[in-house]
Amino acid sequence: MSKPSIPKGTRDFGPIEVAKRTYIFDTVKQVFGLFGFVPIETPVMENLQTLTGKYGDEGDKLIFKILNSGDYLKDAEDALLSEKNSNKLTPQISEKALRYDLTVPFARFVVMHRNDIKLPFKRYQVQPVWRADRPQKGRYREFYQCDVDIVGSESMLCEAELIAIYQEVFKRLGLKVEILINNRKLLDGLAEIIQAKDKFMSITIALDKLDKIGWDGVEKEMMEHGISAKQVQELKSIIESIPKKGVDLSSLEAKLSGSAIAMVGLNELKEALAYHQAMGYAQDNLAIDITLARGLNYYTSTIFEVKAVEVAMGSIGGGGRYNDLTGVFGWQGLAGVGVSFGADRIYDVLEQANLFPEMLLEQTKVLISNIDTKALGMTLPLLKSLRDAGIKAELYHELQEGALGKQLKFANDKQIPFMVVVGSDEVQKKVFVLKDLNNRSQQELTSSELIQHIQHG
Amino acid sequence: MSKPSIPKGTRDFGPIEVAKRTYIFDTVKQVFGLFGFVPIETPVMENLQTLTGKYGDEGDKLIFKILNSGDYLKDAEDALLSEKNSNKLTPQISEKALRYDLTVPFARFVVMHRNDIKLPFKRYQVQPVWRADRPQKGRYREFYQCDVDIVGSESMLCEAELIAIYQEVFKRLGLKVEILINNRKLLDGLAEIIQAKDKFMSITIALDKLDKIGWDGVEKEMMEHGISAKQVQELKSIIESIPKKGVDLSSLEAKLSGSAIAMVGLNELKEALAYHQAMGYAQDNLAIDITLARGLNYYTSTIFEVKAVEVAMGSIGGGGRYNDLTGVFGWQGLAGVGVSFGADRIYDVLEQANLFPEMLLEQTKVLISNIDTKALGMTLPLLKSLRDAGIKAELYHELQEGALGKQLKFANDKQIPFMVVVGSDEVQKKVFVLKDLNNRSQQELTSSELIQHIQHG
Repeated sequence: MSKPSIPKGTRDFGPIEVAKRTYIFDTVKQVFGLFGFVPIETPVMENLQTLTGKYGDEGDKLIFKILNSGDYLKDAEDALLSEKNSNKLTPQISEKALRYDLTVPFARFVVMHRNDIKLPFKRYQVQPVWRADRPQKGRYREFYQCDVDIVGSESMLCEAELIAIYQEVFKRLGLKVEILINNRKLLDGLAEIIQAKDKFMSITIALDKLDKIGWDGVEKEMMEHGISAKQVQELKSIIESIPKKGVDLSSLEAKLSGSAIAMVGLNELKEALAYHQAMGYAQDNLAIDITLARGLNYYTSTIFEVKAVEVAMGSIGGGGRYNDLTGVFGWQGLAGVGVSFGADRIYDVLEQANLFPEMLLEQTKVLISNIDTKALGMTLPLLKSLRDAGIKAELYHELQEGALGKQLKFANDKQIPFMVVVGSDEVQKKVFVLKDLNNRSQQELTSSELIQHIQHG
Repeated sequence: MSKPSIPKGTRDFGPIEVAKRTYIFDTVKQVFGLFGFVPIETPVMENLQTLTGKYGDEGDKLIFKILNSGDYLKDAEDALLSEKNSNKLTPQISEKALRYDLTVPFARFVVMHRNDIKLPFKRYQVQPVWRADRPQKGRYREFYQCDVDIVGSESMLCEAELIAIYQEVFKRLGLKVEILINNRKLLDGLAEIIQAKDKFMSITIALDKLDKIGWDGVEKEMMEHGISAKQVQELKSIIESIPKKGVDLSSLEAKLSGSAIAMVGLNELKEALAYHQAMGYAQDNLAIDITLARGLNYYTSTIFEVKAVEVAMGSIGGGGRYNDLTGVFGWQGLAGVGVSFGADRIYDVLEQANLFPEMLLEQTKVLISNIDTKALGMTLPLLKSLRDAGIKAELYHELQEGALGKQLKFANDKQIPFMVVVGSDEVQKKVFVLKDLNNRSQQELTSSELIQHIQHG
């Protein structure tokens, strides 16, 4: 057997990594619960037809398909096999696939369980997804999404709550973030104002790259799509008039007042922000970013994106409002809004910024020595008493007559803070020696004194 | 789009099901931690060659394979395609597969991370696995395993600990179980004693069915394999001499004293049970079952199986000791012992026996009415204050002037115990009306009184 390995883009997690990941998941789940959201889980495998066509052609290619079981070639078309037509053969030999995101399975769930759901339905879902993307820094083929959505409500109160959820989660994680907010209708209005409604997509796609390619690049790309230099200048003047931080919408209101759709979007934003402020949340880490365009085919109103302030790492969260979650599964016009936390990137950011609390992995607290057969009559009952008292305890796994040094080293290597030693002297005296391995002190105690000491010490 | 569905043998979990499953997972994890075990996680996808050949031919067929991405047919052999040879084509178009159990990925993990691991390594792993089995009652294609193993120790203290873990978990879950214990060496001894060592496999396979087919069936099957009626009678007299409950090994000791290997197995059992008893655990729900044979190719010493006492449902846990976890990945002779909890069956048993605690899903505790625009200046800050105090709270998602009835109904439907009402009167008086929806009382309170009342009431 060759040296074992794991598929590229996937990862093993050791005990400390699991503890750190659990800390992130527990934090988001606690906040979701506090805001009245409830959990659901869906299978890792979905029917392939549930997923195909939902993520565009590029997305379809990145879906991991599962080969049918048994003699899967039996009913495959001979012609497709002989011409080696991978694309067309796929649906004949694969009917299941790995979840690509949590949104489509959620939509499917809502439709399948529509009779059990009360609207507005506030659900969260924390599960892994898979994409056959090229792995790179911060991008894995297996990664977790933490999605929180409210469906069946058009109230801007939902937006206010989701902004508050972002703030609360990142406050608890100790991570400074900036929450970028936009509204699809402002993008529509922008195109209208510069009299280029027909070029909406080109404008939006170019603007979305502003961060990376600057105004020169944006201008070049727009002019290639037939947008004039004058129009680009107009765009630039609107966008540059918006304050880089905070939620002052006055310049936007002045500049976009000529567009009815922009005014609708602006009023939605204002309402959401007013609710948010009235609750008592600070707004200094929010920013209006009218170039933000994620999920353009999907989002119809508010758009969110979160970035870490002190660590360079793309977006660590995002989302928005949609007016039709489930139409593709036969339930038309179910509106909602949701955001997602990129748990794996958040992990990387917390790691880089050294923000994980210490001692997340609750190690064993007490190691009991195993150096004398006669001591077992004392140490085995102590082991159970410690655990019954909720104290993580271990007895050294093997009897090694007199070999305390090795067992002490084991405790030190595993960073176990206390060691109980029972040798022949202690058996005679019926006492336990409790060693505090951090301050290198020790004392003779009874079983109950020892437990009390560890619990309260 | 047709009506959406999910692959057979998989399940969606709604909020209450997720809460119940989390309760099971949290219970096992807490106990594992108390006993000094630490968590690891491995990817859902493993390289196909990591898995194939590890579960026998039948097992290999039940592994879900993942189709390679891109033009997967490009390098496939033409001959295999034209003969439609599914079996031989598989490794050419699939190099990854879904995890089939947690043992093989654990072995792979141990070898890959051997430099980071201190022996004995006590790990637990709670993750789903997938098998293309025919779905039926209590058997799913996607299900969770909860595995706990100690590798790098041959001490029978490990066995004692694992029995205690079973007892502690099921005590916490309130479920009465019977823990069956055997030792592979007793099975070897049994064959030796009746002078049929060469028929070991036939004997063991037949005995394993004793529960289902009775002695008549076992005798018939054994005689077909050339075991004489006299030998079968001898077997029967040994097996029937063992008490059905408890851990009295004296009759076995007398009957198997002629077999050296049986005596080794018996001494292992005795040592494990002595440690277990010395810790202070009861042994009345243990039973020696010399017919127990699970995982015969794998286990080399102790064998465990757990059954629910009051609900009929196959085994809900099992495991045993092995003398070579990782040889197949190049690390020879790493011994260990482990047990597994069948979380999905445990769920079904707890459900049938009505043993889940009530109110596992912590619902929203307070719904705040939204019936008056002017009230928002009071209710929005209250919403944040409640959450800051750790109370799960929601504001009704839409402003409905004066429509309290509908919002009350919403609270009742969702079994929310408290409702806060703020209408125009309350705005004038600057008070909140807190309704206790269970005892149908109400009182006027300030914000801080209200929070105190809910926290301590």
